[in-house]
Amino acid sequence: MSDQSVGIVKPVSQHFGQPIGLSCGRQLPEYQLVYETYGELNADKSNAILICHALSGHHHAAGYHSDSDSKPGWWDHYIGPGKPIDTSLFHVVSLNNIGGCNGSTGPTSINPETGKPWGADFPNLRCRDWVDTQRQLMQVLGIQQWAAVVGGSLGGMQAMRWSLMYPDQVRHCVVIASALKLTAQNIAFNEVARQAIVSDRDFHGGHYLQHNTIPKNGLRLARMIGHLTYLSEDGMGERFGRNLKEGNFSIGSDSGVEFQIESYLRHQGDVFSESFDANTYILMTRALDYFDLAREYDDDPVTAFKHSQCSYFVVSFTTDWRFSPARSREIVDALIAAKRPVSYTEIEANFGHDAFLLPNTRYEQALRAYLQGVARERN
Amino acid sequence: MSDQSVGIVKPVSQHFGQPIGLSCGRQLPEYQLVYETYGELNADKSNAILICHALSGHHHAAGYHSDSDSKPGWWDHYIGPGKPIDTSLFHVVSLNNIGGCNGSTGPTSINPETGKPWGADFPNLRCRDWVDTQRQLMQVLGIQQWAAVVGGSLGGMQAMRWSLMYPDQVRHCVVIASALKLTAQNIAFNEVARQAIVSDRDFHGGHYLQHNTIPKNGLRLARMIGHLTYLSEDGMGERFGRNLKEGNFSIGSDSGVEFQIESYLRHQGDVFSESFDANTYILMTRALDYFDLAREYDDDPVTAFKHSQCSYFVVSFTTDWRFSPARSREIVDALIAAKRPVSYTEIEANFGHDAFLLPNTRYEQALRAYLQGVARERN
Repeated sequence: MSDQSVGIVKPVSQHFGQPIGLSCGRQLPEYQLVYETYGELNADKSNAILICHALSGHHHAAGYHSDSDSKPGWWDHYIGPGKPIDTSLFHVVSLNNIGGCNGSTGPTSINPETGKPWGADFPNLRCRDWVDTQRQLMQVLGIQQWAAVVGGSLGGMQAMRWSLMYPDQVRHCVVIASALKLTAQNIAFNEVARQAIVSDRDFHGGHYLQHNTIPKNGLRLARMIGHLTYLSEDGMGERFGRNLKEGNFSIGSDSGVEFQIESYLRHQGDVFSESFDANTYILMTRALDYFDLAREYDDDPVTAFKHSQCSYFVVSFTTDWRFSPARSREIVDALIAAKRPVSYTEIEANFGHDAFLLPNTRYEQALRAYLQGVARERN
Repeated sequence: MSDQSVGIVKPVSQHFGQPIGLSCGRQLPEYQLVYETYGELNADKSNAILICHALSGHHHAAGYHSDSDSKPGWWDHYIGPGKPIDTSLFHVVSLNNIGGCNGSTGPTSINPETGKPWGADFPNLRCRDWVDTQRQLMQVLGIQQWAAVVGGSLGGMQAMRWSLMYPDQVRHCVVIASALKLTAQNIAFNEVARQAIVSDRDFHGGHYLQHNTIPKNGLRLARMIGHLTYLSEDGMGERFGRNLKEGNFSIGSDSGVEFQIESYLRHQGDVFSESFDANTYILMTRALDYFDLAREYDDDPVTAFKHSQCSYFVVSFTTDWRFSPARSREIVDALIAAKRPVSYTEIEANFGHDAFLLPNTRYEQALRAYLQGVARERN
């Protein structure tokens, strides 16, 4: 463990006993949120940063769960003492959203009304429901205002929604590799992934747990599609090219040629399908598809952002084609027109949408510089 | 039926009783090819054009099969009297390749050695095997030299291979939306499609016909992935945007929102999965993945093209991201370095890879102009 690690961290489970109304019109009678914190909350509670996770993320963003834990949290490269999200300056809060499958209430939880897992009966969620539940947690933690709400992809959508729903409770909004709304192509990729899941015979209309099974193959295919499209053509070319894992191309050979990219994707799909919940995957991709920041503001993002009070930092990556720089520029253009303070950086990076999770010097410098400014502001 | 239609056409089935050696080292003991012709072969048999089909294509490229036939052949917009591939000037030959599922010998045919459908035991094929079987048909038709071999995508790979294998039998090679070899990303999309098929429980290791079933769902997912990636982001945005087919976004609604792009893709998948053979899909995508024009020429396409004698016309489409203009420029650059005559045009088009099949004035003009030059040459 390096000096820049937050070290061993322990997830906390917070139970909320009051029903919460959801945007779909239904209620969750009670729920729990699992979260972790890194770094100390200062005396005036003004240094808290909320991390919003994306599609397959969870609360464990940094550090390790034990001495023998070989894999750190999903954003460990960016969160820690001296790292871009500097835990010697900030108190970082990272939770698993409701609807998730890592400890917070979601489709694998027991529905108290039936005594059985919610499964497909778990309510549809929108980003605003996550914002509301995150705000409940904020109140439990005694935090009045986030120094920053930070998120990539679907997390960036939550960060933007925070800035509109609770404008006086967010000082900075960091929106990484995100969009005001998805394009038809992006929706289509999510839909093919969902179709792979729901057409799996083990899906049982989403009530697979009651049938003691999981739609493993559908989830595996869904992940392969997702993983492939979150990488860039150039990145895959550099890493795998047309290199073979098995077989050869000699004329006269009928043996199974296998490209490295093929076995890599199958492996990614296998691992994911054993650890993630299929209903959560459907629910999260639906929330992505349905998100449209400006829908309730006459479809005008400028009107929408006029409701915010915070400053924004927007980041995109050159080879990200599912949340392309063009989508980030739409956010920036609307913020400028709404006269909101905004900084924007487009990072040269080879790994498509996944770049937001990966080491990249210029990205690290940019995020660090912005957040150091946020830290100075308080003093 | 317009004046520019080739009218009612009748497929012909040609049986080849001699075994043919394949590049995998195995033999096909016998086989048949289904083909159609449009336009008259001239006296010196110098006006024949061979059309090579792509992944899901077949022999029926133009005209109708009956008066009540509502849908013309797959390239009807480009083949006919007065059309870019002008049947008043050329004798056009269009066949279903071996390994196909539209009448030529393929995985759904009976293996004479077992009396059962070939299924997964059908030999692996490479582009060169298609060239060889196309050449057998050429000999039956008494044609000594093609005025042009024309193909899009996988068809363009066959056209290039023709020009290297039988250089004195091809005067012009028209290579549309193709590549010298696939990128890792392109292979990855094919692999996810194949995984959808082979992981379908009805696949039975490729011997589904012997189990009286078909892996319909896997094929449906494969087609959805293919269709989605053969379109462009802009094209999908223009055609579908975020328009809804069902449901609404009102807060308080938990009803099933359905985007138009979703039902469109599902429909495409449904139709395809009822008409195409899964083993053929696997075989064709494998041939795409394995194709590497220059592999046997020290991996140098310049060396490869020095073996050819024909002129080339190369076409790409701006929004085609699976066979992007960059891939076509690699072909053109190698041809220039090999001192082969080559014309190249990059067509502004909104519909991605599918643009090669769709109406487009500039593409029509370019193809027409090139082939009229080919026709004049003979006189």
